[in-house]
Amino acid sequence: MLEIERKFLVKSDAFKAEAFRENEIKQGYLNSNPERAVRVRIKDDVGFLTIKGKSDESGTTRFEWEKQISREEAEALLKLSEPGMISKIRYEVKAGAHIYEVDQFFEDNEGLILAEIELQSATEDFEKPNWLGEEVTGDHRYYNSQLSKNPFKLWK
Amino acid sequence: MLEIERKFLVKSDAFKAEAFRENEIKQGYLNSNPERAVRVRIKDDVGFLTIKGKSDESGTTRFEWEKQISREEAEALLKLSEPGMISKIRYEVKAGAHIYEVDQFFEDNEGLILAEIELQSATEDFEKPNWLGEEVTGDHRYYNSQLSKNPFKLWK
Repeated sequence: MLEIERKFLVKSDAFKAEAFRENEIKQGYLNSNPERAVRVRIKDDVGFLTIKGKSDESGTTRFEWEKQISREEAEALLKLSEPGMISKIRYEVKAGAHIYEVDQFFEDNEGLILAEIELQSATEDFEKPNWLGEEVTGDHRYYNSQLSKNPFKLWK
Repeated sequence: MLEIERKFLVKSDAFKAEAFRENEIKQGYLNSNPERAVRVRIKDDVGFLTIKGKSDESGTTRFEWEKQISREEAEALLKLSEPGMISKIRYEVKAGAHIYEVDQFFEDNEGLILAEIELQSATEDFEKPNWLGEEVTGDHRYYNSQLSKNPFKLWK
């Protein structure tokens, strides 16, 4: 399927009070190339294998395929992954008809918070809560696959 | 799981008369790195996603994880794959208690025929039919992931 997503920096912790769900995520990459990213994720006690294609020019639309796998399978596959594990807490926050996924990163990406919203079409309107910062849709540095290789702590 | 396999060149077509099964295989790689190979395969009308780790020093034992997927999913994932598609017919041939998988390659790997046998232990005995040639276990050039990038036709 094709995913239509926009991504933003987050400028305050205010989103936490509005979150209705919170999950721990660890993930690594069997391929961090954005043209054929292969991601292994453990979200609380469930595993996922996700494959993403390259995005369109605006960075909004991207092919995505995902299968749930067991935590044990995900752990075995994480052992094969490229160096650079991503560790984050994902908060889910309602905003009108949409849900923001807000990721607070840890370890080598400590200090980074990113919010993503999935849309039905590239032109669909959506609410912008006051904790939402600059848009970074299409900026490859903020792809998790790139954060695994070039983490936020090393920027500048 | 861990796979224990040995691989051989094949020196005649005699295996075809002994084959009890024959399947068409097309496959590509989302990552052809042998340390974390991610393979998309279509075998007749079924898809498979397979992930392999690096082999031990002898090249005999290798971590392998596989999930069946639909042909449609496999076709979508093949579109993302690295350049270099593998096209082959797999013959299965009984030899004592074991089965040889004999792959006749086409297109850029035309002329190459490889036989593989899966063992329960690295020291297990097995029959060697008279069409079996030189052993190439552990020779990376004969990995399908490498044949996709450096096909047989370009050798020498």
